[in-house]
Amino acid sequence: MRSVARITPLSGFPEWLPHERLVEQELLGRIRRLAELYGFVPLETRAVEPLEYLTHQGETSKEIYAVRRLADTDTTPSELGLHFDLTVPLARYVQEHRGKLLFPFKRYQIQKVWRGERPQEGRYREFYQADLDVVGDGDLPLHFDAEMPALMHELLGALPLPRATVLVSNRKILDGFGRGLRRDDTTAVIRALDKLDKIGPPAVHDLLCDDAGLDPKEADQWLALAAVRSPDTGFVDEVAALGVADDLLDQGLQELAAVMAASAALPTGSVIADLHIARGLDYYTGTVYESTIAGHADLGSVCSGGRYDDLASSAAGALPGVGISIGVSRLLGRFLGGDMLGASRMTPTCVLVALVADDTRAQSAGIARALRARGIAAEVFHQPLRFGKQIRHADRRGIPYVWFPALDEGAADSVRDLRSGDQVDADATTWTPPRDDLRPRVIAHIDSGPGSGSP
Amino acid sequence: MRSVARITPLSGFPEWLPHERLVEQELLGRIRRLAELYGFVPLETRAVEPLEYLTHQGETSKEIYAVRRLADTDTTPSELGLHFDLTVPLARYVQEHRGKLLFPFKRYQIQKVWRGERPQEGRYREFYQADLDVVGDGDLPLHFDAEMPALMHELLGALPLPRATVLVSNRKILDGFGRGLRRDDTTAVIRALDKLDKIGPPAVHDLLCDDAGLDPKEADQWLALAAVRSPDTGFVDEVAALGVADDLLDQGLQELAAVMAASAALPTGSVIADLHIARGLDYYTGTVYESTIAGHADLGSVCSGGRYDDLASSAAGALPGVGISIGVSRLLGRFLGGDMLGASRMTPTCVLVALVADDTRAQSAGIARALRARGIAAEVFHQPLRFGKQIRHADRRGIPYVWFPALDEGAADSVRDLRSGDQVDADATTWTPPRDDLRPRVIAHIDSGPGSGSP
Repeated sequence: MRSVARITPLSGFPEWLPHERLVEQELLGRIRRLAELYGFVPLETRAVEPLEYLTHQGETSKEIYAVRRLADTDTTPSELGLHFDLTVPLARYVQEHRGKLLFPFKRYQIQKVWRGERPQEGRYREFYQADLDVVGDGDLPLHFDAEMPALMHELLGALPLPRATVLVSNRKILDGFGRGLRRDDTTAVIRALDKLDKIGPPAVHDLLCDDAGLDPKEADQWLALAAVRSPDTGFVDEVAALGVADDLLDQGLQELAAVMAASAALPTGSVIADLHIARGLDYYTGTVYESTIAGHADLGSVCSGGRYDDLASSAAGALPGVGISIGVSRLLGRFLGGDMLGASRMTPTCVLVALVADDTRAQSAGIARALRARGIAAEVFHQPLRFGKQIRHADRRGIPYVWFPALDEGAADSVRDLRSGDQVDADATTWTPPRDDLRPRVIAHIDSGPGSGSP
Repeated sequence: MRSVARITPLSGFPEWLPHERLVEQELLGRIRRLAELYGFVPLETRAVEPLEYLTHQGETSKEIYAVRRLADTDTTPSELGLHFDLTVPLARYVQEHRGKLLFPFKRYQIQKVWRGERPQEGRYREFYQADLDVVGDGDLPLHFDAEMPALMHELLGALPLPRATVLVSNRKILDGFGRGLRRDDTTAVIRALDKLDKIGPPAVHDLLCDDAGLDPKEADQWLALAAVRSPDTGFVDEVAALGVADDLLDQGLQELAAVMAASAALPTGSVIADLHIARGLDYYTGTVYESTIAGHADLGSVCSGGRYDDLASSAAGALPGVGISIGVSRLLGRFLGGDMLGASRMTPTCVLVALVADDTRAQSAGIARALRARGIAAEVFHQPLRFGKQIRHADRRGIPYVWFPALDEGAADSVRDLRSGDQVDADATTWTPPRDDLRPRVIAHIDSGPGSGSP
């Protein structure tokens, strides 16, 4: 195979080393297992969508990668693009297969997405998202919104991350508050409130007056609303005290109260009603979710989502949905990069079977086969070097055990634990390592609450 | 979200329904588990490579998809392309990270690849490949070639497919045979022999004479060589009997004999030395592998590969490798399409917890939580409809159990097996379904040998 002179990393396209991929795979596996425990079905859509379809979807600021066959002439317009999220493909998939799906359609989807944005720390051009959504045919009870915070709490708790807090609000509260204040278009207001975490209330007050054209008193009211934050349904009274009345506002408060009530069984403080959450630039119409992890506020929301009234308006009726999305690569970038996450070893191999001599290779291969047959990852060293070298090979990879085949007929094999140095007689058809040694484990160096550690 | 009038499938970009994705996921999981049992480390590379790098790699007939940011002007040339296999990215990755990898580098990689070929039955434009390769730094003992057929045998046997046969040969045999016949360039000969399965020996004889310019006697010799097929090392004498002498030929025969000898422990007939295997258009330089499955010869080779002397020539020295690749999507297309493979149910959910009334939702949710805590996938029905409707919901999805919460304090919950109709008292903290019911199983309707059935 010919090589090219310059082999350099592509900015924004992260690639892990194998032991880091072991960690990524473990995290994706935990998300998958939990999604399935909750009865979400797996879905995978193609990487490409018609370009026309991608560019017509709400948020067009997401930079799209266009795709075309190289064999087509340079002037052939691209007809396809790489998907930039997993919601747009879901909408298309559900429309395309509506007659074959069972509703409410609960699906999870873990795939790479692509965005041609300017690469910067924590922003990738290719990254994993893990999405869980429920889509209804015609209607979708609020119950599904109410279940979501518990799922988010469990999902984030299953990952080896610092303690997570789930934040919930409802778009109808902001919209209804605006209607109560005779303000039909709240876009500029929401845009300003979205900056609260970054620039703080006084600067947002300025924005509300200067950019959104509010008088200082109304700006105060919006800031008071956005400051409401409660671990239970207490926010209802706090908002009422602001003296703004509107039906849509009431509906939003009721919906949010129902969601908070359903989360009451969770540890106090794990789910917070936080009225400054807007997910302003997205297409949500009701409940909205965000979540932050302790000590990493600068990461922003690591798992977000919400309710949309209609995933795809069509003659066959509305497809309402509610869902969440985890930016897996961003999390990994932070925690692998900071050496806060690692794998207990560099390879799945649990046992390296030593090779005594070329003509005893069949003996070593038989031992490895016997171990594998019982689910113990094993490989035979490839050359009959002296044992010291074979042991070093295992040690450099973090392989915990080296197996020494018996040299004489009737003698026993032995196995050495490289960490303790203990060596014991063993039979490949019965020997079993401690459960923790079977597969590489994820090691978390995270000094925080109940979400940390590796289960 | 706005919709687009026309939602149609894209030819060549297969998408499965969720219960089919369950099958795909199970197959990919079995490949992954087996690869890890053998000590291969997981690797995932970005989907894109520099276009210049892709177009410089040997086989340029693989149609490449070029990728560029839509925000760039139409006249900006594409700099990136989607990878068309997993070998080219491996070569680039190993060069890029050579200093951080441990050699021999055993990696597996399961990813989508893209080829802009004309779609036709069994040919996709986006599809899964599963690759396993061993790459050496400087050298790579033949031992790794010899291990591969056993791995292929076990890998194909782990999939719910008809019985597979692994075919092995060595490029040095064809090249050396050519040298023995004073024929330096065997390209046209190999191209003709590659058609044996499709057009048969007489037509290939014509091709050898007409296209490759051989005289009929030499064409006979080549056909005699390509007809050699043996379940053990018997092929060595058969080739010797053809009366062609060459050092490279001898070397090829010895290497192949070593590979066959290492496979002797496998069931007779599962690995065959078959000298018409050439993988003509690929970059192999030694051992080559193919495999076919019983009753599906028209699929061609479902798992193929070989030895390459150098994955990437560079100043730092050669990177020889040996590996195999399984075309997973092609297999699934055949077996899902033919209803030969299916899932035992449409969802991961094992237990549907009935909802008695809106105000007992917490009770039902608690039951589901208790079941999930013990690894039993459970969900609560979303509306307090009459039980008949809730049971029908479960039945349509193939959910095996419906859980009925106790209506009165002190009474017991009960669980019904929808298949038998049996209903028994049960406690969510202790009840456990039979192991086979825990997760959806892959059901194979395949009437063939030891490779069939679902483990």
